[in-house]
Amino acid sequence: MIKNDLYLRALKGETVDRPPVWMMRQAGRYLPEFMKLKDKYDFFTRCQTPELASEITVQPIRRYGMDAAILFSDILVVPQAMNIEVEMKPGLGPWLPNPIRNMKDVEQVIVPDIDETLGYVMDAVKLTKEMLNDEIPLIGFAGSPWTILCYCIQGQGSKNFDMAKEFCFTQPVAAHTLLQKITDTTIAYLKRKVECGVNAVQIFDSWGGMLSPVDYQEFSWKYIQQIIDALKDDAPVIAFGKGCWFALEEMSTSGASALGVDWTITPEKARLYTNNSITLQGNFDPTRLFSPPAVIKTKVTEMIDAFGKDKYIVNLGHGILPNIPLDNAKAFIDAVKEYGQ
Amino acid sequence: MIKNDLYLRALKGETVDRPPVWMMRQAGRYLPEFMKLKDKYDFFTRCQTPELASEITVQPIRRYGMDAAILFSDILVVPQAMNIEVEMKPGLGPWLPNPIRNMKDVEQVIVPDIDETLGYVMDAVKLTKEMLNDEIPLIGFAGSPWTILCYCIQGQGSKNFDMAKEFCFTQPVAAHTLLQKITDTTIAYLKRKVECGVNAVQIFDSWGGMLSPVDYQEFSWKYIQQIIDALKDDAPVIAFGKGCWFALEEMSTSGASALGVDWTITPEKARLYTNNSITLQGNFDPTRLFSPPAVIKTKVTEMIDAFGKDKYIVNLGHGILPNIPLDNAKAFIDAVKEYGQ
Repeated sequence: MIKNDLYLRALKGETVDRPPVWMMRQAGRYLPEFMKLKDKYDFFTRCQTPELASEITVQPIRRYGMDAAILFSDILVVPQAMNIEVEMKPGLGPWLPNPIRNMKDVEQVIVPDIDETLGYVMDAVKLTKEMLNDEIPLIGFAGSPWTILCYCIQGQGSKNFDMAKEFCFTQPVAAHTLLQKITDTTIAYLKRKVECGVNAVQIFDSWGGMLSPVDYQEFSWKYIQQIIDALKDDAPVIAFGKGCWFALEEMSTSGASALGVDWTITPEKARLYTNNSITLQGNFDPTRLFSPPAVIKTKVTEMIDAFGKDKYIVNLGHGILPNIPLDNAKAFIDAVKEYGQ
Repeated sequence: MIKNDLYLRALKGETVDRPPVWMMRQAGRYLPEFMKLKDKYDFFTRCQTPELASEITVQPIRRYGMDAAILFSDILVVPQAMNIEVEMKPGLGPWLPNPIRNMKDVEQVIVPDIDETLGYVMDAVKLTKEMLNDEIPLIGFAGSPWTILCYCIQGQGSKNFDMAKEFCFTQPVAAHTLLQKITDTTIAYLKRKVECGVNAVQIFDSWGGMLSPVDYQEFSWKYIQQIIDALKDDAPVIAFGKGCWFALEEMSTSGASALGVDWTITPEKARLYTNNSITLQGNFDPTRLFSPPAVIKTKVTEMIDAFGKDKYIVNLGHGILPNIPLDNAKAFIDAVKEYGQ
């Protein structure tokens, strides 16, 4: 039994005194204790060493006391396990030296044995669960198949992922073959994470909003739906699609326990488009954490009032930025904890 | 009198046999005749030499016969005229060596005399009008004040314009002072363009969609509204806000003659959110021009069917990409011209 089960109760839609709160990328560069480990160990060492991954996961909890922890890892450990080389270049971000270009490349991609390739993640889950000592739930995550494909084709971050889209629009059979391989791997990966102890799983579709509504259905949503179908009886699934406001209605009937929304939609419209039927998570603009703490507190309170305290998980609309002052992050968390008092 | 006035009639909401068509960034790098001039003359030479700007403006018209031309220029000629240094770095794009950081920097920014600083644009308008010989209308344009501010603060392109937003959220008085100076300059600039002969003006709010609906009203829309109010009796105004679906309802009652929309909204929702009351422009995904020509033609026809042929201007949802094949751009234009035949 989890002692603070506010997050799990919100996922079930239960009535709560205040909504739970966590922040996407809460274990990150804005924390000095994270920077110390970052200076000492490179990115994949931090991901692949269970002691480091679990320590990084609990750092923000120690400092701020969020209502949920999310395992420190990266969405690109999945393509890495699928035989696709992934590097992390300081200042640039993800870098794939041999991006996929055609069906022949897709055929080289494997659907791996999870424990053989991603056993280090499972060890990190188990160790983190021990460290958390059932105080709060632990979230596991994966990228959406479309978002993973974006990096596999483009080879790096991009403003519009034009190469990834060109690949889908000119080689749709190869694209769907790759998407299905990523989906199959992701399902096995998340199921194993749940077996090892995570209490919920979140799917990050960071680049779904680059697609038109029709293309989103074909190249992103139908694979996320497969993941939800496969996982929903094992653990609550949260689907977060940045810029995917246009698909919210369909997403709300998918079997997911909650939907993440970004800051470009008002709480009122998010409730309207989802027929007030599902728990929503979000949607504070991460750059609004630059505002003075007093402004942050006011805006967080207004946000909770607008979403309503029930069927709601307070979060940012995307990951916290590296240069947010510590006191501003604290103001965000504290405003939720003080809500209604 | 303009011989092909399809574009102007669509702006008035008149009944037409087929909608007019043009493409954002239609005078651009996908054209070999443009690349020849690009190899020979640097960016600002092309903008500042009326013979080059007008030649580049008519190049796509000669090749494809669009229903409107748009003057070749750049949104950043405006801050340049306001005493802000702007460079164009090959491979990187806009580069401002001395970005604005505080109120003192804002105070150095001038609202310039238009003919003194941007007379070359007016000369290009007059020369282009001569070259077009009243065959089709000429569109003039400007960036939205918010989008211009983004570059003035960030100093270059960005995925999230975090520094620009931090500036607005921590120094709102300085931000509004700068936004008003840009607005005043833009109004004078567009009025002078209309006097010199442009038949309509389009405001590009490329980065409006980075803001929350509340912040969009404060930092972007209220300045665009000032521009519309000042210009609407002089010429039709088209407001294009990338990612600004959330503001469409308010935009539809602004006095603008048309609204541009990007590809993340379906035609049906765009009509719904604007109460079917205004001409809409868009919204083909620019990366969908990578599809084979036959697919492009089918998708363009479906798009026109969905928007309806009246109160509609066919366009992309953002600028055409540099590596689009010539035949694919042709398929896009031809599909519109063949519509209903």
